[in-house]
Amino acid sequence: MPRSREFDEGALLEDAMETFWRQGFDRTSVENLVERTGVHRASLYSIYPDKRALFVAGIKRYLDVVVGDNLRRLNEYDSPGEAVRRFFLGLADAPIERLRRGCLLTNTATEIGLEDPEVAALIRSAFARMERALSERLAEARDLGQLAAGVQPRVLARLLMTVLQGIRVMSRVGVERKLLREAVNGALSAIRPAASARRTAAGRRRAKHLA
Amino acid sequence: MPRSREFDEGALLEDAMETFWRQGFDRTSVENLVERTGVHRASLYSIYPDKRALFVAGIKRYLDVVVGDNLRRLNEYDSPGEAVRRFFLGLADAPIERLRRGCLLTNTATEIGLEDPEVAALIRSAFARMERALSERLAEARDLGQLAAGVQPRVLARLLMTVLQGIRVMSRVGVERKLLREAVNGALSAIRPAASARRTAAGRRRAKHLA
Repeated sequence: MPRSREFDEGALLEDAMETFWRQGFDRTSVENLVERTGVHRASLYSIYPDKRALFVAGIKRYLDVVVGDNLRRLNEYDSPGEAVRRFFLGLADAPIERLRRGCLLTNTATEIGLEDPEVAALIRSAFARMERALSERLAEARDLGQLAAGVQPRVLARLLMTVLQGIRVMSRVGVERKLLREAVNGALSAIRPAASARRTAAGRRRAKHLA
Repeated sequence: MPRSREFDEGALLEDAMETFWRQGFDRTSVENLVERTGVHRASLYSIYPDKRALFVAGIKRYLDVVVGDNLRRLNEYDSPGEAVRRFFLGLADAPIERLRRGCLLTNTATEIGLEDPEVAALIRSAFARMERALSERLAEARDLGQLAAGVQPRVLARLLMTVLQGIRVMSRVGVERKLLREAVNGALSAIRPAASARRTAAGRRRAKHLA
């Protein structure tokens, strides 16, 4: 028999995700979650037995929403090299509030590490998923002659994933945008800048299909 | 008049640094610190008014010990390209316990961010110091023809600092060594492998001088 629920579980997860993202796991109390979500403690506990269970659900929400959006953006441009370039340059050009908040996965990786193996596995698999998507676009880029000679798409994808994490760390402590941009440009130097890049109809369709 | 102290302040700081490094700021209680350092609460408070003050002192200790050691290692080889290569390959080959613990600066950057501007500034300046040291060695490498054409030492140093942070994040959640090594190799591809590299007497002297 389905439980009756007087609140929107999607909105609850969104709020929980936001709260953990801003404050981290330890700094977030069940009280904070009750306040932020507007859902009574008893109702929260009726679905999530403890704070950790809601945290895991919040991480999964983040994977859908934020990682999903990243994957979509990687496919927004027909030119694979340009899609990868713009994605990474966009990291350094994000609104300041977004930069300061960092990434829930990065923050959780360093906060909790392997102390919670289930959470660590979720994070590793998100990293692996992003890396695969990057690697696929970089393989397309190589086939189109957009990569410097000898550059292996898989290795460059791995480097870029590492850079992504590093940017998330540095932006948390207010390292200047200009420096973040230079680091990204260093990593992108193996990708030749396209003469022209447009969001083509095919690119938009592809992005939509993946969203 | 100097306060009388019945304990070794260096050992206290070492223990405090280790505790914060393993557990983070939030997860470390004053009780934990009393237990770990063996110094009475009253004596701790006689020098450090609160947990944060001891944390800041622990971070400064880390800068001396760990960042100092990094700077020394960057100067251990006469060949600048080889010194940089070995330093970064060494990150991925560190003992597993060290990999899992990550870096106190990285962990603190994501845990606290700009909420504590003094701590954030300490972290930024440590990053800048490491980056300058890298940049200097990479400029030497360029002058010796050890860098690929067109590579700017400053930009490569910035990329490598970002990679360093990224490695620290990924190793916290148990990303395999092999993958860390590939990411590092991707970043090092602009440095030509030396035909031979030795810890020369001059290199050892330089490293000692900086230690």
